[in-house]
Amino acid sequence: MLSFLLLLFLLPSSSNALDFCVGELTLPETPAGYPCKPPAKLTVDDFIFTGFKKAGNTSNIISAAVSPAFTAQFPGVNGLGISAARLDLAPNGVIPLHTHPAASELLIVTQGAILAGFISSANDVYYKTLKKGDLMVFPQGLLHFQINARGINSVAIVSFSSPSPGLQITTLALFAGSLPSPIIEKVTFLDDAQVKKLKAVLGGTG
Amino acid sequence: MLSFLLLLFLLPSSSNALDFCVGELTLPETPAGYPCKPPAKLTVDDFIFTGFKKAGNTSNIISAAVSPAFTAQFPGVNGLGISAARLDLAPNGVIPLHTHPAASELLIVTQGAILAGFISSANDVYYKTLKKGDLMVFPQGLLHFQINARGINSVAIVSFSSPSPGLQITTLALFAGSLPSPIIEKVTFLDDAQVKKLKAVLGGTG
Amino acid sequence: MLSFLLLLFLLPSSSNALDFCVGELTLPETPAGYPCKPPAKLTVDDFIFTGFKKAGNTSNIISAAVSPAFTAQFPGVNGLGISAARLDLAPNGVIPLHTHPAASELLIVTQGAILAGFISSANDVYYKTLKKGDLMVFPQGLLHFQINARGINSVAIVSFSSPSPGLQITTLALFAGSLPSPIIEKVTFLDDAQVKKLKAVLGGTG
Amino acid sequence: MLSFLLLLFLLPSSSNALDFCVGELTLPETPAGYPCKPPAKLTVDDFIFTGFKKAGNTSNIISAAVSPAFTAQFPGVNGLGISAARLDLAPNGVIPLHTHPAASELLIVTQGAILAGFISSANDVYYKTLKKGDLMVFPQGLLHFQINARGINSVAIVSFSSPSPGLQITTLALFAGSLPSPIIEKVTFLDDAQVKKLKAVLGGTG
Amino acid sequence: MLSFLLLLFLLPSSSNALDFCVGELTLPETPAGYPCKPPAKLTVDDFIFTGFKKAGNTSNIISAAVSPAFTAQFPGVNGLGISAARLDLAPNGVIPLHTHPAASELLIVTQGAILAGFISSANDVYYKTLKKGDLMVFPQGLLHFQINARGINSVAIVSFSSPSPGLQITTLALFAGSLPSPIIEKVTFLDDAQVKKLKAVLGGTG
Amino acid sequence: MLSFLLLLFLLPSSSNALDFCVGELTLPETPAGYPCKPPAKLTVDDFIFTGFKKAGNTSNIISAAVSPAFTAQFPGVNGLGISAARLDLAPNGVIPLHTHPAASELLIVTQGAILAGFISSANDVYYKTLKKGDLMVFPQGLLHFQINARGINSVAIVSFSSPSPGLQITTLALFAGSLPSPIIEKVTFLDDAQVKKLKAVLGGTG
Repeated sequence: MLSFLLLLFLLPSSSNALDFCVGELTLPETPAGYPCKPPAKLTVDDFIFTGFKKAGNTSNIISAAVSPAFTAQFPGVNGLGISAARLDLAPNGVIPLHTHPAASELLIVTQGAILAGFISSANDVYYKTLKKGDLMVFPQGLLHFQINARGINSVAIVSFSSPSPGLQITTLALFAGSLPSPIIEKVTFLDDAQVKKLKAVLGGTG
Repeated sequence: MLSFLLLLFLLPSSSNALDFCVGELTLPETPAGYPCKPPAKLTVDDFIFTGFKKAGNTSNIISAAVSPAFTAQFPGVNGLGISAARLDLAPNGVIPLHTHPAASELLIVTQGAILAGFISSANDVYYKTLKKGDLMVFPQGLLHFQINARGINSVAIVSFSSPSPGLQITTLALFAGSLPSPIIEKVTFLDDAQVKKLKAVLGGTG
Repeated sequence: MLSFLLLLFLLPSSSNALDFCVGELTLPETPAGYPCKPPAKLTVDDFIFTGFKKAGNTSNIISAAVSPAFTAQFPGVNGLGISAARLDLAPNGVIPLHTHPAASELLIVTQGAILAGFISSANDVYYKTLKKGDLMVFPQGLLHFQINARGINSVAIVSFSSPSPGLQITTLALFAGSLPSPIIEKVTFLDDAQVKKLKAVLGGTG
Repeated sequence: MLSFLLLLFLLPSSSNALDFCVGELTLPETPAGYPCKPPAKLTVDDFIFTGFKKAGNTSNIISAAVSPAFTAQFPGVNGLGISAARLDLAPNGVIPLHTHPAASELLIVTQGAILAGFISSANDVYYKTLKKGDLMVFPQGLLHFQINARGINSVAIVSFSSPSPGLQITTLALFAGSLPSPIIEKVTFLDDAQVKKLKAVLGGTG
Repeated sequence: MLSFLLLLFLLPSSSNALDFCVGELTLPETPAGYPCKPPAKLTVDDFIFTGFKKAGNTSNIISAAVSPAFTAQFPGVNGLGISAARLDLAPNGVIPLHTHPAASELLIVTQGAILAGFISSANDVYYKTLKKGDLMVFPQGLLHFQINARGINSVAIVSFSSPSPGLQITTLALFAGSLPSPIIEKVTFLDDAQVKKLKAVLGGTG
Repeated sequence: MLSFLLLLFLLPSSSNALDFCVGELTLPETPAGYPCKPPAKLTVDDFIFTGFKKAGNTSNIISAAVSPAFTAQFPGVNGLGISAARLDLAPNGVIPLHTHPAASELLIVTQGAILAGFISSANDVYYKTLKKGDLMVFPQGLLHFQINARGINSVAIVSFSSPSPGLQITTLALFAGSLPSPIIEKVTFLDDAQVKKLKAVLGGTG
């Protein structure tokens, strides 16, 4: 009977190509993600990410931390249409206004309380204080934010509808890069003094 | 200046159609999800789900509960490519072997410990005991399971790469429906006594 | 021979369902766009848009105008993965910093000269003065802007990789809606005076 | 134990929304397909199509027949990304040069022999006589054809990567519709006499 | 006139990149499939698959054979959203309960008769005996099976909505791999004796 | 404060993978496009295309020119779902009947006047003379054409819903390649004399 079984076993083995595609980050990325590691080299640990176990370092200007588990940090999600991040907000912490160009986001508060909101294309604002266990969805590409809403460390787990959602923080995009101040002022209506003040704080040039 | 501003304001208002599409569940679904509620009727609560705040009822045959926040329960995710569920596992609890036909899954343990695993098309098995804070990804459509790995209540939040991931529990598919026993036995190689025993427990007919 | 031909003719007629799907805007939208108008009611004019023939009204606060040909204005693009807009920039005109949550953009200058740029997730800035005939691509969801770069009326035609690309103008999102000033300041690091000044100009409340 | 089981059974029932979406053809189509029939009204026959059992009528100008099982004929494939057709070619039969605007095609010869081919964008031609059991793929949107290659009735089953692949037969597009002859001649380089001759045969006007 | 023509001919040649992408299986796969072979090296045979011409070997435990024409066997379908397989069922043959994680399936009976069925997420069962020429669709990711329904060799051609649909046979996933018996029993409710009996037959370890 | 800021700056830099993917054309293409150039090597010029600044050479058989800005010519659009082309039509110029297998097209007339049209699967014809500023959409994969409608040079900019839309010109596909004349005649109903005449003009063999 052994030869019968061998025939049967060859079938699924020869057709499992795209069950998953753990990213080989040393090869050039493509629009659909990284090339796949050979399945024979994979172990269960390729599908597990342990970077959320401890709090991110919130000793910074925003009293907050974003710990991503995107393809770059967690190659197991490559090609699978999903990823995650851990948000830590110390008292007074804030995840500044930002977008994810390539994904919708789903947030769950796992500790403390968070004031979260987003703004629509019509400039309508949707925000509320979320308590432990509350879930909120932020539609793809729209500006949103999270603020610690209680005097204690608060934590959220967020997931994304893409393994590489991107992250563009508006204030850093404007004031931490090299866009010349006159252009910033022209495209935002902000005052020159305001722009220069924030560039000084955030390291922007130009 | 007011009239100038009005001109400007009309622009984004007239083009925000698909920022989001909160599902109108009373209308017929389409392959891409439900038709959208009119934006004017929406409030922030349409984007918030509170059903994960308390534990699911685990007083059942599996000592476990799955609380979904799919489109049917949380219309705010309609069309956004993401959804979630809360898993509660009492001591000895198990989420039996199952698949999500339309989504990959990302699990994070938020309490206790969970033995989780999946099986590939090549019949390779990937499983490990996950502790609080650990993340594991289950590729789309593959068989997977979660088992309480400590003697205390354990909890996980799972997210999906679709607002309607589907959920097919293998044992219920076989033994809780109306597929006749001879067919079940033919397509699974299970013994007649085994099939009839489980049908009796799980309410299957045929 | 006529009956033979009739048989032949029935074939293509019965299978042309999704050649196109001109949007019936009076029915509820879905995540994939509007339901289709009946093909029998369509004429060539359903596939033509004439709203770009004359310049947009630039007598406003930005000395510029965006005339969209998205699904809402041009139902012929519904479901076809593409749309367009005409940009008019009077001398000193500017299309303020904005994103399209659901599309990449391709711009061609058809008159004058335009300083255009975008900012990446890494806060890198890519900008240049484009002359008549130059093409520039703005990747999906990233902040970008267009500024008149000569003292004459300048015009660009932009196309999008979605029939409903969305349009979120950062300054309007912040200062023309109802997000309370303390929240704005918290999530942007802007000064209170700056926020209140722009709210007064742009009509924001809260 | 019954109440325990009820709790368990509610779960999958409440989350099976998009397992499938059998098309309700009486409702307006959307870009993603037709709205779904209520699952409670479905039987196994909604997933079965019997129209391929007998040969299509080849008593026509092409001595051939295409019997489609697209969404319009087989609503069970609505939203599922696949469809099929049966090709019957009497001796001397031909499926004239055509494209499927929205799908790739996979053909298998089930009876007789068929000369099949396609033309690439680079005007390269790929064609061969296929025998019973041979499979050939025609990439999306490219011109292709099938010709009976033996003196007996030949049959093929073709499948498509879309439930609504579309079908545009070049010769009918040109000569069976109302495009004026001078335009046809201008865009094809065909002679006036040729155009008028084929319009007369195929019923074209203009 | 020759130089004029050359100008014209350069155009389509320079833009035919993604007409098709025959897979170069020696390069690493990506989430979207294999890199493409250079078009200049292709012949018509790259688009043809002859492996369905003869019956699969059914001298095995299931008295059946699945002969796939997925990307791995037929690189011509790489990137084209479609593939196929031939099913051979000797008398008493069965394709055991299985899923395709990444594709819907369309089956046509070309010889004999086949009892085919699938189970929905709601545990509803849809099955019927299909005769020669009957078509049945199996929605993506759902459990399904095929059984010889007459005492003669039966054959079906199945096509898939993906070039790499995957194939997970439930009984092999459970009993032919290395998942420890106590875990199998926990996640399926099967008895220990049943599990060990099938592991012995199917070669499972653990 | 500098160390705080560094912590903050590391975040977006580490997650910007798929903002864009400028194509590295020297590496093998994949079904989703070319692998990406390393972001560190990019400048603004990678996102700009200057090939539309001057008219295409219309001294050819069609008195017209198509200047593509597809991935092959403009690697900045790789993976972004959009591309463009410039059409130049001298007096009497024509872009012959053609399809784009992988994209819908949006045309805007920027100079002169153009008679443009397309034909549906049902053989319905939609055509009209477009004037400067008029926009017309051509649904994916359908036959369409553009003809100079005034006695002066006319120009259009077209954009596509894919970075690699493909371009198949019907008359060249038939008469400039190597498809044997008897096959052409069989699949088009054209006369032998007509076929041979056009092959002679267009360089076809076979």
